Formats: sequence, C-alpha cells, structure tokens
Amino acid sequence: MSTEPILVLRRGTHGMPVTDLSNELRDRLPDHEIRVAETPVGERELIADARIAVGMGIDEDLLSHAENLDLFACAYAGTGHLPMGSLEEAGVAVTNAAGVHGPNIAEGVVGSILAFYRGFFEGRDRQTNHEWRHYQTDEFMGATVTVVGLGAIGQAIVERLAGFGVDTIGVRYTPEKGGPTDEVVGFEEADLHGALSRTDVLVLACPLTDTTRGLIGEEEFVTLPEDALLVNIARGPVVETEALVSALRRNKLRGAALDVTDPEPLPGDHPLWDFGTVQITPHNAGHTPRYYERLADIVAGNVERIDAGEDELENQVA
Amino acid sequence: MSTEPILVLRRGTHGMPVTDLSNELRDRLPDHEIRVAETPVGERELIADARIAVGMGIDEDLLSHAENLDLFACAYAGTGHLPMGSLEEAGVAVTNAAGVHGPNIAEGVVGSILAFYRGFFEGRDRQTNHEWRHYQTDEFMGATVTVVGLGAIGQAIVERLAGFGVDTIGVRYTPEKGGPTDEVVGFEEADLHGALSRTDVLVLACPLTDTTRGLIGEEEFVTLPEDALLVNIARGPVVETEALVSALRRNKLRGAALDVTDPEPLPGDHPLWDFGTVQITPHNAGHTPRYYERLADIVAGNVERIDAGEDELENQVA
Repeated sequence: MSTEPILVLRRGTHGMPVTDLSNELRDRLPDHEIRVAETPVGERELIADARIAVGMGIDEDLLSHAENLDLFACAYAGTGHLPMGSLEEAGVAVTNAAGVHGPNIAEGVVGSILAFYRGFFEGRDRQTNHEWRHYQTDEFMGATVTVVGLGAIGQAIVERLAGFGVDTIGVRYTPEKGGPTDEVVGFEEADLHGALSRTDVLVLACPLTDTTRGLIGEEEFVTLPEDALLVNIARGPVVETEALVSALRRNKLRGAALDVTDPEPLPGDHPLWDFGTVQITPHNAGHTPRYYERLADIVAGNVERIDAGEDELENQVA
Repeated sequence: MSTEPILVLRRGTHGMPVTDLSNELRDRLPDHEIRVAETPVGERELIADARIAVGMGIDEDLLSHAENLDLFACAYAGTGHLPMGSLEEAGVAVTNAAGVHGPNIAEGVVGSILAFYRGFFEGRDRQTNHEWRHYQTDEFMGATVTVVGLGAIGQAIVERLAGFGVDTIGVRYTPEKGGPTDEVVGFEEADLHGALSRTDVLVLACPLTDTTRGLIGEEEFVTLPEDALLVNIARGPVVETEALVSALRRNKLRGAALDVTDPEPLPGDHPLWDFGTVQITPHNAGHTPRYYERLADIVAGNVERIDAGEDELENQVA
C-alpha cells in the first residue's frame, strides 16, 4: 500500500471543476492522498513532491519543478500540446485519456449525420419563423460511411452504426489488423481515393500526424461524391480549410459537421460560420458529464499498477 | 395474367409527383395498365373502371363512382381519415403503407434524441452568432428509452438503438407477444407509469386509438423524471398539448421533439414554437425519397396476390 500523494493540476475542462476529478480519484484511491493545486505557486510547490500528476497539460516551467515526477496522466486524448521531449528527458511517463470520449463523441457524430440527412437545421430555421411547411429530407439507410481512424473513438462510432443498415469502410495505418468495419483500407492514395469515391459520409477520427495533416484537400473533394457529408471530430488541420470552403461554395458537398477547425477557435469573420450546410460545434464533442469518472478509472487503475510494481500502464503514450 | 387497369389518384405527398409512383408501379407490373388521374373529373371517370386504386385518401363522393373497386391501397400508414364504413359497405378492401416509413422515421427519432443530448440547437444558435464557446452536453449511453407502440416504426427505432448502450422498454397492447425491447409492458396504469418513472426518453410510435388518445397528460408528466425527453412521431392527440406546455414552462422536461402536434398544423401563435427545448418538424418524419419505391413494392405484391387468387393481402386493414 502506498500513500504517495497524487497531484491534480488547476486547470479543468468543459466547465467542470477539477475538484470533481479529485473527488472521483479519492473514491477510487482511498489510501492515497489526493492534492489539488489551486494557484500557480501552489502548483509549483506541490509538484515538487508529486510522483504522479494529473492535468490537461504541463509546461516546461512547471516540469522544471517536478523533481520526483514519474507519471504525467494527461486528461486529454491528444498529447500534441505536451513538451514530450522534456518529459522524456526527465524520465516522466505519459498516459492519455483515450477512450474517455468514445461514447459521447460517437453519439455526436451519429447525431450530426442524422441531423443532416433529416434536414434538422432547415427545420430549425422554419421553427424560428413559426412556419409549418414541409421540406425534402433524405434517408441514411444504405449509405456508405468511411471512418478514418479506428481507435477507441472510431470504434465507438462504428459500433453505433450497427442498427442503421449502412456499409462501413475503415481507414487505418495497418489495414492488415482488420477492424470493426465491413472493409478496412490503408492511407495509400489508391486505397484512400478508392474508398472516398464510394463514400456518402466521411468521418475523420484520427490523430493529427504527418500522414493525416491536410489529408482531405482539393483532390479528395474532387473524388468524394457531390452529396457526401464530411464529419471532422479529429483535429482541424486534417482538412485543408480553403479546399473545404471552396467545395462548399461550389455545392460539391452535402455539408460538413465540424467540431474542430483550422484555425481554432474559428475567427468571428470566418466564412465557415455562415454556410447553411455547415454545423459548427466548439470542440466540445469530447464533453461528457462522465468525463472525470472515466478519466479517474484510468488514472486509478494505473496508480494501482504502479503500486503493484507493474511496468505496463493503460493508455501509456511515452 | 391480368390486365386490369390500376388507378393512381391525383394527390401526391411530400412534394413528390404521383407520376413517380405510377412509374414505380409500371416497373413492377409491366403487364398491367397503370392509369393516373390528373383532374377531379378524370378521377371520377377513371375510378368507375378501376378494380384497384392507390392514393393518399378517397372520399365518399369519389367512392360513389367506384363501381368496380375491390381494393383501395392507401398510401399512408394511418387510415383514420378514410370513410371506413362506406368502404366496407361497398365491399372494398383497404391496405395501408405500414412499414414504408420505418427507416426514415427511426433515423429522425434517433437523430432528435442525439440532437437534444448533444445540445445541437444551442450550438446552432451560437453558430448563428459566430460564437465559439463551450456549452454543457449530456450522454445518451446508459439511458432508458421507452417506445410506445412496437409496430414497424417502433421496431425500426429499437433496431437503431442497438449500438448505443441503452436500455429499452416497449409498451404494447399485447405485452405477452414480447418484442425487440429489453422489457415489454402493457397500457394498464401501473405498467405504463412503472415504465415512465424509469424513462429518460419517451418515444410515441403508436396509432391514435381510444386507448392512446390523451395517453400522455398531466399525470404522466408528473411520473416522468424531470430530465426526460419526449419524442412524438405518432399523432398529435396522443399527448395533451396543455399538459405538455405546462410541463415545459415549469422546466419539468429535458425537452420535446414533435413531428406531430394538436392542433396540426400548429398555428403561428402557438406557444410550442418558441421553447428552446422544443424541436418541431412539420409532420415530415415520414418523408423519404424511397417512399414511392417501398409503397409500390407493397401494392405490386398485393396486385400479384389478387391476380393469383389469394385472399390474404399484405398490410390489409379492412
């Protein structure tokens, strides 16, 4: 049994105070002292003793005070904002929160698809005008959905499509691994474009990497059918914004549901805001009231593994 | 082989011309003459010869000219608007279009549920204001969904919920029949209220009958949890409108997605239009571009049964 203090950094997310996270951790780790940093100076002081810190991020300055840190448990799924080189030099392992957002992001993705097919936003405008008047809608059944990225989020999306009578194609680095989709292809141009040419709904659920940066640009919008729907819950730069705006202006897409944009936050004067065929949500598809519960499950499990002297941690990325 | 002419009445639905329906029928019944009535007088003349007529409705006057009619194939799922007594007296069988709307209505229902849980309409308002700002959302996983009515539409809804990790309760006249839901109960007060008390999402997918008229009123809104969502794709009068408005005003519901209302069409000055927690669609959940294809499948199948001298027709209601 260990009583090593675990430090929860100050910054919360999605409008939920970090004290909720510390309470979830206390429920799961009654024998550990869970400390919460409430001020910048407190954060620097408390991190000196901590072997485990939990937070949205950690910067070089704070890291320089973390003399005993073994593990930084990042509260986000993406770790591109962390000083990974410095963490490695300091011998700090890093875990992420992959899997925490699967259910809620997948619910948002399927919801967006259905909102577009059923014309909900057109309906909303008519409701605002108190106007009872039919409009044309479309049917999702029989569509082909291509999901780029078959990690926890991509899998959660495919799982929820099971009852809709649609065909699914997965795109992943290692297609030979297979996956939950009807077909799995790789990122090579012939594979990707072959899939895009048959795609009614393109869902981007991949990390931002050298391969995926700018993955969907001018050429890809040419290959996609003209009534295709784009759903991006990955990272903004996976899509070339100019090419997207151009495709929307020429009516070469059914529409785009964007939880992430490039630039982000989207500037107030950006053309993407005003398309009737674009749904913008402010990078909150990852929000769930159960966020801290699921994060605490991962962190507490890893603390128990560390206490038991195990080497392998859940969701370890470095 | 029969060459009896089949008459398609003038009135289309969902903005689709009836010539589309007649073309679908011609594809399926190449040996039959398919006539389309284009004017009121043409309708009265042509129906005199017809043994089979297809249409949205038929009134007493038109029926009085239908001297040879054996079957009226109603293009709607509901037949409450038809003169059933006169049809029976005239010896005219009636079929409906049940099943035609299952996929699209079910897509709309699941879409509405997810739109509410993910705060899409709040997001839409922020988008209109070019405002990138987080808002709280909720998670559907783990919810209990009660579906009243387990006909073709109710079943299609339950089917699409399979991947979402929710519990389902079905309400039907004959619970001993079982159903696709985790539980099935009847309409008795104890059964219904027992289900409502555990319900996060209440979906009404039943026909309007003496039992279901006013089914959801003041008492039912008391029993439902305060964050329950109501989805009505049945008929407006299944819900007592005043009780619904009152529950919404007192914030006793998460919200209501209404494809049908009472009165309908909803008058321009009705309070339901302006609730942020209400989604109104103008009774077009039943719209699908595949409407006439599926209707033609039913009608053509029945024409073949009649030609073969069979007594039992698909979707026969009288």
